[in-house]
Amino acid sequence: MPIPVHLARLSVGHRVQNELRVVSRDNRRTRDGKPFVLLTLGNANGELPTAPIWSENLTWADGAERGCIVQAIGEIDMFGEGVRQRKQIKLTAPLRVMDPSLVRLEEFLPRIADDVEQLWGSLDKLRGEIQSPTLRSVVGLFFDDDVFREVFERTPGSTRGHHAKVGGLLRHVVEVTAIARSIARVMRSPSGAPANADLVVAGALLHDVGKVEAYSVLPTGFDTTPCGHLIGHIVLGALMLERRVAALGATLCSNEQLMEVQHLILAHHGSLEFGSPVRPMTIEAEIIHWADESSAKASSFVDAMADESIFLDGSEISERVWMLDNRRLWQKGHDWN
Amino acid sequence: MPIPVHLARLSVGHRVQNELRVVSRDNRRTRDGKPFVLLTLGNANGELPTAPIWSENLTWADGAERGCIVQAIGEIDMFGEGVRQRKQIKLTAPLRVMDPSLVRLEEFLPRIADDVEQLWGSLDKLRGEIQSPTLRSVVGLFFDDDVFREVFERTPGSTRGHHAKVGGLLRHVVEVTAIARSIARVMRSPSGAPANADLVVAGALLHDVGKVEAYSVLPTGFDTTPCGHLIGHIVLGALMLERRVAALGATLCSNEQLMEVQHLILAHHGSLEFGSPVRPMTIEAEIIHWADESSAKASSFVDAMADESIFLDGSEISERVWMLDNRRLWQKGHDWN
Amino acid sequence: MPIPVHLARLSVGHRVQNELRVVSRDNRRTRDGKPFVLLTLGNANGELPTAPIWSENLTWADGAERGCIVQAIGEIDMFGEGVRQRKQIKLTAPLRVMDPSLVRLEEFLPRIADDVEQLWGSLDKLRGEIQSPTLRSVVGLFFDDDVFREVFERTPGSTRGHHAKVGGLLRHVVEVTAIARSIARVMRSPSGAPANADLVVAGALLHDVGKVEAYSVLPTGFDTTPCGHLIGHIVLGALMLERRVAALGATLCSNEQLMEVQHLILAHHGSLEFGSPVRPMTIEAEIIHWADESSAKASSFVDAMADESIFLDGSEISERVWMLDNRRLWQKGHDWN
Amino acid sequence: MPIPVHLARLSVGHRVQNELRVVSRDNRRTRDGKPFVLLTLGNANGELPTAPIWSENLTWADGAERGCIVQAIGEIDMFGEGVRQRKQIKLTAPLRVMDPSLVRLEEFLPRIADDVEQLWGSLDKLRGEIQSPTLRSVVGLFFDDDVFREVFERTPGSTRGHHAKVGGLLRHVVEVTAIARSIARVMRSPSGAPANADLVVAGALLHDVGKVEAYSVLPTGFDTTPCGHLIGHIVLGALMLERRVAALGATLCSNEQLMEVQHLILAHHGSLEFGSPVRPMTIEAEIIHWADESSAKASSFVDAMADESIFLDGSEISERVWMLDNRRLWQKGHDWN
Amino acid sequence: MPIPVHLARLSVGHRVQNELRVVSRDNRRTRDGKPFVLLTLGNANGELPTAPIWSENLTWADGAERGCIVQAIGEIDMFGEGVRQRKQIKLTAPLRVMDPSLVRLEEFLPRIADDVEQLWGSLDKLRGEIQSPTLRSVVGLFFDDDVFREVFERTPGSTRGHHAKVGGLLRHVVEVTAIARSIARVMRSPSGAPANADLVVAGALLHDVGKVEAYSVLPTGFDTTPCGHLIGHIVLGALMLERRVAALGATLCSNEQLMEVQHLILAHHGSLEFGSPVRPMTIEAEIIHWADESSAKASSFVDAMADESIFLDGSEISERVWMLDNRRLWQKGHDWN
Amino acid sequence: MPIPVHLARLSVGHRVQNELRVVSRDNRRTRDGKPFVLLTLGNANGELPTAPIWSENLTWADGAERGCIVQAIGEIDMFGEGVRQRKQIKLTAPLRVMDPSLVRLEEFLPRIADDVEQLWGSLDKLRGEIQSPTLRSVVGLFFDDDVFREVFERTPGSTRGHHAKVGGLLRHVVEVTAIARSIARVMRSPSGAPANADLVVAGALLHDVGKVEAYSVLPTGFDTTPCGHLIGHIVLGALMLERRVAALGATLCSNEQLMEVQHLILAHHGSLEFGSPVRPMTIEAEIIHWADESSAKASSFVDAMADESIFLDGSEISERVWMLDNRRLWQKGHDWN
Repeated sequence: MPIPVHLARLSVGHRVQNELRVVSRDNRRTRDGKPFVLLTLGNANGELPTAPIWSENLTWADGAERGCIVQAIGEIDMFGEGVRQRKQIKLTAPLRVMDPSLVRLEEFLPRIADDVEQLWGSLDKLRGEIQSPTLRSVVGLFFDDDVFREVFERTPGSTRGHHAKVGGLLRHVVEVTAIARSIARVMRSPSGAPANADLVVAGALLHDVGKVEAYSVLPTGFDTTPCGHLIGHIVLGALMLERRVAALGATLCSNEQLMEVQHLILAHHGSLEFGSPVRPMTIEAEIIHWADESSAKASSFVDAMADESIFLDGSEISERVWMLDNRRLWQKGHDWN
Repeated sequence: MPIPVHLARLSVGHRVQNELRVVSRDNRRTRDGKPFVLLTLGNANGELPTAPIWSENLTWADGAERGCIVQAIGEIDMFGEGVRQRKQIKLTAPLRVMDPSLVRLEEFLPRIADDVEQLWGSLDKLRGEIQSPTLRSVVGLFFDDDVFREVFERTPGSTRGHHAKVGGLLRHVVEVTAIARSIARVMRSPSGAPANADLVVAGALLHDVGKVEAYSVLPTGFDTTPCGHLIGHIVLGALMLERRVAALGATLCSNEQLMEVQHLILAHHGSLEFGSPVRPMTIEAEIIHWADESSAKASSFVDAMADESIFLDGSEISERVWMLDNRRLWQKGHDWN
Repeated sequence: MPIPVHLARLSVGHRVQNELRVVSRDNRRTRDGKPFVLLTLGNANGELPTAPIWSENLTWADGAERGCIVQAIGEIDMFGEGVRQRKQIKLTAPLRVMDPSLVRLEEFLPRIADDVEQLWGSLDKLRGEIQSPTLRSVVGLFFDDDVFREVFERTPGSTRGHHAKVGGLLRHVVEVTAIARSIARVMRSPSGAPANADLVVAGALLHDVGKVEAYSVLPTGFDTTPCGHLIGHIVLGALMLERRVAALGATLCSNEQLMEVQHLILAHHGSLEFGSPVRPMTIEAEIIHWADESSAKASSFVDAMADESIFLDGSEISERVWMLDNRRLWQKGHDWN
Repeated sequence: MPIPVHLARLSVGHRVQNELRVVSRDNRRTRDGKPFVLLTLGNANGELPTAPIWSENLTWADGAERGCIVQAIGEIDMFGEGVRQRKQIKLTAPLRVMDPSLVRLEEFLPRIADDVEQLWGSLDKLRGEIQSPTLRSVVGLFFDDDVFREVFERTPGSTRGHHAKVGGLLRHVVEVTAIARSIARVMRSPSGAPANADLVVAGALLHDVGKVEAYSVLPTGFDTTPCGHLIGHIVLGALMLERRVAALGATLCSNEQLMEVQHLILAHHGSLEFGSPVRPMTIEAEIIHWADESSAKASSFVDAMADESIFLDGSEISERVWMLDNRRLWQKGHDWN
Repeated sequence: MPIPVHLARLSVGHRVQNELRVVSRDNRRTRDGKPFVLLTLGNANGELPTAPIWSENLTWADGAERGCIVQAIGEIDMFGEGVRQRKQIKLTAPLRVMDPSLVRLEEFLPRIADDVEQLWGSLDKLRGEIQSPTLRSVVGLFFDDDVFREVFERTPGSTRGHHAKVGGLLRHVVEVTAIARSIARVMRSPSGAPANADLVVAGALLHDVGKVEAYSVLPTGFDTTPCGHLIGHIVLGALMLERRVAALGATLCSNEQLMEVQHLILAHHGSLEFGSPVRPMTIEAEIIHWADESSAKASSFVDAMADESIFLDGSEISERVWMLDNRRLWQKGHDWN
Repeated sequence: MPIPVHLARLSVGHRVQNELRVVSRDNRRTRDGKPFVLLTLGNANGELPTAPIWSENLTWADGAERGCIVQAIGEIDMFGEGVRQRKQIKLTAPLRVMDPSLVRLEEFLPRIADDVEQLWGSLDKLRGEIQSPTLRSVVGLFFDDDVFREVFERTPGSTRGHHAKVGGLLRHVVEVTAIARSIARVMRSPSGAPANADLVVAGALLHDVGKVEAYSVLPTGFDTTPCGHLIGHIVLGALMLERRVAALGATLCSNEQLMEVQHLILAHHGSLEFGSPVRPMTIEAEIIHWADESSAKASSFVDAMADESIFLDGSEISERVWMLDNRRLWQKGHDWN
């Protein structure tokens, strides 16, 4: 997949000739009744608004509905001033709407920067380390299934929060599994390892499988599905495991073993008020919970720090960041070397 | 089933010759090393401690372990004085341990006062009113199954809280369903009925089916099962429905219909901090939640008011009641007629 | 009372010639200093904005201040586009301001759809069932008073939340009383009825009388009075009862009886953080509290579901609904028959 | 009133011959069935347990029920050892039960150390400073009434928390009024005094009048009355003011003025979760609230520091103190002079 | 310092010829691309927006960036209408930007109305009353230092909350000290003064010294410094005391004494969730905490009541006030004389 | 150091001849006034009560006060029965009190099972990896100081919670640093490492240095010092760093660098309600916080699971565990191999 242009990094006057997704479309009308259109166009690496497409050029936007992929020709321009000044794309030619069957949607939605194959490599290596054949098979119910893998690698880690990118779920699960395995190892003492490493790895790999059914990746963006709302990704994970075990026909593991893995999934948010119907009752569940928190919060921190717009006027201290419980962040003005 | 004696209502000196359950057994030793035993004996209508069985009679308690059913012979006696004075059973003969295969455990555990058949009659009438054949069949997956009914009618509504009695779950479900149906009716307006009455009734009937697997009824009393702890009765309900639908082989309802009923089960605690992984998103789920609260809280109130021990020295104002969020209750000293 | 037109249901181009209330008036000025006016007009069944009344027609809006009743002539039009497109009334003639003494304000404020007489019939039937003459008289202090009835039937259940309509309080009280009575009945067991049905009904009927003084119904809409803010409708209810009993001169009930009814009023919000200065200490107070919750929440649910604007683009899942604790609602796409 | 002996300060072997209140009585029985009695005896300055009164002397305790005043003869003794060692009264003669009509109960209950007349002097001086004749009369409805004053000066500030002593309410009200007046003065700025000093003083004087009906002073100790539980001292204060104004017949103040004073009473706990049905909406209510907090918390601190038992083994750091939100206190080992 | 004009009190048409600070500058562009500028101008007594400076006069605003002091010539004008109508300054001549070295910034930022010398007099009198020479010296580490005094008297009490004015911290500290001393006095009982008055006064004087480093006073307004965010004013206070004691070289007080004063600073917010890392463990810390609350909340109340904009249309009841926990305030319509 | 005997693992009848610490001493008296003594004796690997030392042998316990090290001779015995049966040490000879100068206290307090030198090796290796010389020197201010190391390695991680053992702090710090470093590594993406690894490691190493002054290790056990209570270990850490930097005289790092490290210490509890006066504002602080949580919670989990007493009667489900927020734990009855 070619690396899509970073729109926000283009300088004023730079020529744009790219395939972009219509992130949003706003049809307005001037006071004297003349229609005009405002679009936001974007790809995997960000988005920019267009300058207004006035009535005289209105046909330029024909068919460019939210979620369409269009060929846009224009140049980078500025509007507003001072603190509020922002870049926009000034179109200089009609948009050409692409045939959706000819484009790969994932190239036009926010996407992780990682090489997906490399992440799959990490994930498969981690599950390959599971010693128990039974447990490895349970994990394989999902990760040996190519159809599942295809959906999984496109699913975001959330719709608007941490890892909200195509591939975000894959990256998040690799992070959680690596951190959880590390915690389990560090806690080892002369009296032995406190946690079953197999269970820690297996539970970490499976903890968020419900998100595959809970989130949708549409031309219009990421969204939560009805069952994501009505059942929730936590319970969905347990139900999906139940279904795949049942569908096997054969006995893969005991009911008690199944229950133990379902507990790892159900307890991963750590407490009731954060949506887990039960709290962690095994050390494996406890470790997975903290690894999940560590990955989600550190990732949100990384994303927030990468968003220059939170530091107004180049201030050292940011505005409040919703995704981090309305905290302010600090970008220091010194280094240590 | 004969009505078991109300031990607490027997007067001092009254002769006891009853089959009772050993609620607890405490083996102690006097300072000079002589062993003695303290038992608590009970049946469906309450319990009393025994006077100490001193070392000279220690064999009287042979085999009378917690959970056994014994034939007890003795008389009602008092011990302690003043506010702390309580009744006890002074044994006058050896306990005879019954063959467990010859007794019906339910007669010896706290039990609802209602006629169980009558409650089943109410429940079956309520489900018979469901108009949608599909939905009636979904409910029937459980309530047409005699094995399920047998377990269901023995299950308590909780292990230590509301409806903590054999048959308590049956009674609670009838209460919730009747209240929910009534709320749905009362809310009707000229613009129509706001809720689908079928769904309200079906969801109310099914909301607590998970308790059948979450709670155990043992000779030693009510307890929460491992899966009751690890999965929780709310998610268990959704899983049990999933399994029964899957076991059918044939298609009973659409996935979306199944999801809707599972939502009714999952949302019935109303909010995350009370253990529901999702909050009510349909008016039927909302109504079932409030009916559940009404039944649970009103029933706890009834039980607390029936417990004379909370009103010390006949005070109008009770001690704090744990089951009612540490409230104090008032027993008025006047009437209205 | 004739049924006022449902403005929101009129199709584009439909001619409007109706008496409507000026819900709000916004005087603005264009950049070149020319004044124009935006109005929102409404009646008991909803409201719509007008198209701007430009400076050339500014006299059309003379005297049409917030709260006035005007005769409006025009037609239904659209403005905005896409998700934001909304209906408006395009006036085609000057507004005629009505003489306020000639209109019944209630016809122009949001109003319940029910027949008020029928609701009074239900309410009076419920209070007629009270067995205790004393308690019936206490309730009669309010509901035998025609002046009180007249104000009561115009009062909304809240100013912006549940039952926020003329007649909303009357409907809410009927709902609460019917639900409370039903809960009391359902809870009956072989050992008797747990609650005094008379008190449940009487307390439910009186629980919100304070709203009559706490809310005002003005041409400009519903508002909370100073004493509604400074004393609160809960304590106002207790004070109003105190005053009516005192004003009798004669002894209607004992101080303890009065205290018991005041407790039902004071405790009906269930807990301190929701504004009740005391928590329910009698089962009657407990039942009234849950019936109140059931009616308020179910009614808010009905209102929210009727508001199409919460389902953007016809989505199955709504936006967050403030009145329901920022929950999202689900409008299913299937049925059960 | 003579100063009652400080029992806890008497040294071992000191002879006791005092009139004391039976704070509690515990009738017990030894293992061999012989009855014995444990009493706790106390007066306004504290209390001590008695040594067991064994069966041979059991008649010594005849009639010495909880709440009786008895003439006790004995000496100070120790029991237990180490950290648990405590003083007790070893009786050496039969208790003589006093005729209750001959004793003043207040001398035998925990009592403030202050001179009550002096506190009344402070209170009457504070209310004498009120400039508005109307407001002074409103305050006088209570404090010009000798019957009210007699009850008021005996009422504790709470039953187990701050100022839980005979006279505690009087002292608390003087403290709150003095602090509130001081806050009002300190806040004065060049643009004037922010608060109406009259209202601050009047509201402070009246804020806790409801405690006169909410608490009872019995031979058995302090307790909350049924109306203290069912209505609460906050609402009782507003109701009592309502009644006294109504009982006047004549018009003392406008309804709006009455409402303003009732608001000062109702809002004095500052927030809903602490039992105020409304939050402070005037600066006078705000000031009274903080003065109330300051007096209550500082007084609890003084009482806790005076309780040596919280500092085990003479530790610098105390055990957790329930009355101060489970904080630990520090008694420093140095001084500043 | 001359009293700056109260802009908000000038009537329409009044001529303006004043030095004012550019509180904010907004560069905008009309639809046809012509730039215009909106400024907000202010001084110590308030601020007003300007009418738009259209493109033809754009040079009038040259150099008038946020934080500049300008000489403004124009007249008071109105814009908007109805509830939204507000005053503005219509400039009639170019702004003249002042040389920053010639102006005293404090005259152009919100400033307390008090005479600063008088407040210093109060503060120095309060610290002069400290009996302990050691403690007086500890306080003198800050208040004998002219450099500290100069910064201290310019620092606001907060950046957007209570006492958010030049001099606000000085005034707040005087208020807190006076109130704390008063509470300590009022709590005196026959058994003595509960609190060490010296410590109460010293702790109150020092409790907020950290704000001197935590807040900055810039031409652009008040702000929190990086160390104010990263360390917090509470811990900064303890660190600053540590540093000043260490810098002395000589021993001023014992480590335990230093620790006691640091505790007074650290505990002054009263509880962890409000930012104190420890809760008050001495009565002096407790009293200072409540005095701090009283000053902060009463002052916020005064400021809110002075802001006419919270009472829309002259309503008795205000809009919700963010600074007072979203409470509504009441401005009564009656008086008491 | 020899491995102290595991008292709890000795079988009944096993001979005891060990040096043990008097964990607690309870002097009691029988009803007939004869004194007897109960001791609890323990070492680094646990503790057991003694059988009562009756009056005839009372001199056996002479001088054996809490905190003494004694030579105990006796044998393992049982007392109580059933669920309550426990082991005790039946002494058979007088205790011999050791000269405290001849024993190493750490051998007699709960102690980690790890080799301390190995932990120091891990810690020093971790700090050796710090690239920045400045930062390495800051860390060295503590860890290059042999006096500090000696105290540090004896300090527990808490007094009653996680890592409450001699050496517990050392182990906890190694765990936190290793986990934090691992999180930092896992979060690396194609766009680089999100966190400064040096700061993550340095901050983790220093985050709990304040515990060295906040906790005391006494013969009587672990305790919190007065400054641990009054200042708190979090702020103590920042103050100790301040002092060591100041004591250097020379400039080790800039004020901003110092502030950044102090922020890592101050923010490590993550939120105000858990005692951090500020929340994490840098990704390094965020990562350290989650690593700290992971180590503390996983370690508490390990300790709880090792405590057989929480699983009554060998139940799969434990009693509620205070240290883990009153959760119940599960010890599964199956394995995965």
